[in-house]
Amino acid sequence: MARIAYVNGRYLDLREASVNIEDRGYQFSDGIYEVCEIRDGALVDWPRHRARLKRSLGEVRIAMPMGEAALTAVLHEVMRRNRVHYGLIYLQVTRGVAHREHSFPSPSVKPSLVVTAKNLSFAKNEAQAAHGIAVITLPENRWPRVDIKSVALLPNVLAKQQAKEQGAYEAWFVDRDGFVTEGSSSNAWIVTKSGTIVTRSADSGILPGITRAVLQEVLAALQMRFEERPFTPQEAEEAAEAFVTAATQIVMPVVKIDGKPIGNGVPGPIAAKLRSHFHGFSTFS
Amino acid sequence: MARIAYVNGRYLDLREASVNIEDRGYQFSDGIYEVCEIRDGALVDWPRHRARLKRSLGEVRIAMPMGEAALTAVLHEVMRRNRVHYGLIYLQVTRGVAHREHSFPSPSVKPSLVVTAKNLSFAKNEAQAAHGIAVITLPENRWPRVDIKSVALLPNVLAKQQAKEQGAYEAWFVDRDGFVTEGSSSNAWIVTKSGTIVTRSADSGILPGITRAVLQEVLAALQMRFEERPFTPQEAEEAAEAFVTAATQIVMPVVKIDGKPIGNGVPGPIAAKLRSHFHGFSTFS
Repeated sequence: MARIAYVNGRYLDLREASVNIEDRGYQFSDGIYEVCEIRDGALVDWPRHRARLKRSLGEVRIAMPMGEAALTAVLHEVMRRNRVHYGLIYLQVTRGVAHREHSFPSPSVKPSLVVTAKNLSFAKNEAQAAHGIAVITLPENRWPRVDIKSVALLPNVLAKQQAKEQGAYEAWFVDRDGFVTEGSSSNAWIVTKSGTIVTRSADSGILPGITRAVLQEVLAALQMRFEERPFTPQEAEEAAEAFVTAATQIVMPVVKIDGKPIGNGVPGPIAAKLRSHFHGFSTFS
Repeated sequence: MARIAYVNGRYLDLREASVNIEDRGYQFSDGIYEVCEIRDGALVDWPRHRARLKRSLGEVRIAMPMGEAALTAVLHEVMRRNRVHYGLIYLQVTRGVAHREHSFPSPSVKPSLVVTAKNLSFAKNEAQAAHGIAVITLPENRWPRVDIKSVALLPNVLAKQQAKEQGAYEAWFVDRDGFVTEGSSSNAWIVTKSGTIVTRSADSGILPGITRAVLQEVLAALQMRFEERPFTPQEAEEAAEAFVTAATQIVMPVVKIDGKPIGNGVPGPIAAKLRSHFHGFSTFS
């Protein structure tokens, strides 16, 4: 079945789905994106993703491409046309098409909206969670505004590729003070030997992850010990467990960091517990 | 006359010129670009721009999209089809089209190549040089690999827009140590009261500008005093002159920084001299 994409008002075969070469997303990475999990044929935590989209767009002063209800309808239509029961939806909003000039174009230029959806293998994702993933660490080299979910992802691409070439799945950035910020496409967590769950505050250095935020509610509901503070790679090496969170990974155990095993070198019980409880705290729409 | 763009082997009306929404330039800013001046119907310093393109592509491990002679021929054809006598040529190479995943796609995925050209007004550019431009300063917030001429330009876009809204034409980034790195799309220079021309070394914090490099040859040939070192905004305020260099600006006098006049607040004789001599040291092809 051909995949279908939504592009500026039209539903198109993905292979034919295109944007003008002067779309500012292409020439200036002048755009924002979101990725939502699709589960049981529904969008997971879409209202939160939509709110973050709105915030990111506001930070770079791009208008929302359409009203919230209309946007939600487009997402459902893309999901339906691609018959995605389990997978993800991707949406991207850019500042639109205008002759190349760094400064913003005329306000009459409309933002571009692109939406795609794809099926993922639930079994494959579960198998990955059962095995756990390896991470490497790299010096943080992204701009400070990583709280904006922009498509200026070249540093993330290079980090992820480096991880892959070292047999790992994710790269954790480490800031100048020696603390982990986050992964190239996920937030980073550890569980200390005394059972405290730790992740960095969203105040600086990271994208405020939606999965991260929902998981905090899970922790509160399950009355688990939680500390919001930065941690070092060394602390991660000595932790009982580690994991990453992201929309399609939910809670993905990390079993190795820079080649060294974490805990017993296998996924731990706390990550498994959080993973199994997560969707009880998500919204489905 | 409709503008014509080259896109992956085809010459198209710019309005119809498009790339797939899964081009990695669009989703990941995973691409490199160059801008060359066109003057008297010829490319200015193209061999140097081509060498820098090759270097940038090498740093992010994107293959050259075609051989050097073929690429040069495409540029000439785009220039010819757009009848550009004075203006610029823009080219962009991305890692190509592949289903979205941060890490590099299969090596069988071919890079995308897009080339556009446009006429500029020589009179307007000269008038701007006669008046000089204003700059503002902003904290450096780009990633450290600004030596790679990538399309991950969102910070540059936001800086340029901020300059524009403050009645200026360019924003100079200032690093943590208080030194100017460069402009959002140009290199930064000053002329001290004792007549020494100063610009930051290309070793760190800046893109090694082609205009910058050619101008160094001009300075050597004219036996003018030159120091390669960083300078502060304060030093710029107290300088005799300041200017920026970029492919289409050549040597553009700066007459105001953060609202304060530099020197007499009008373009100075050294900038004018360098501007007039510049093309005697350029190559035309």
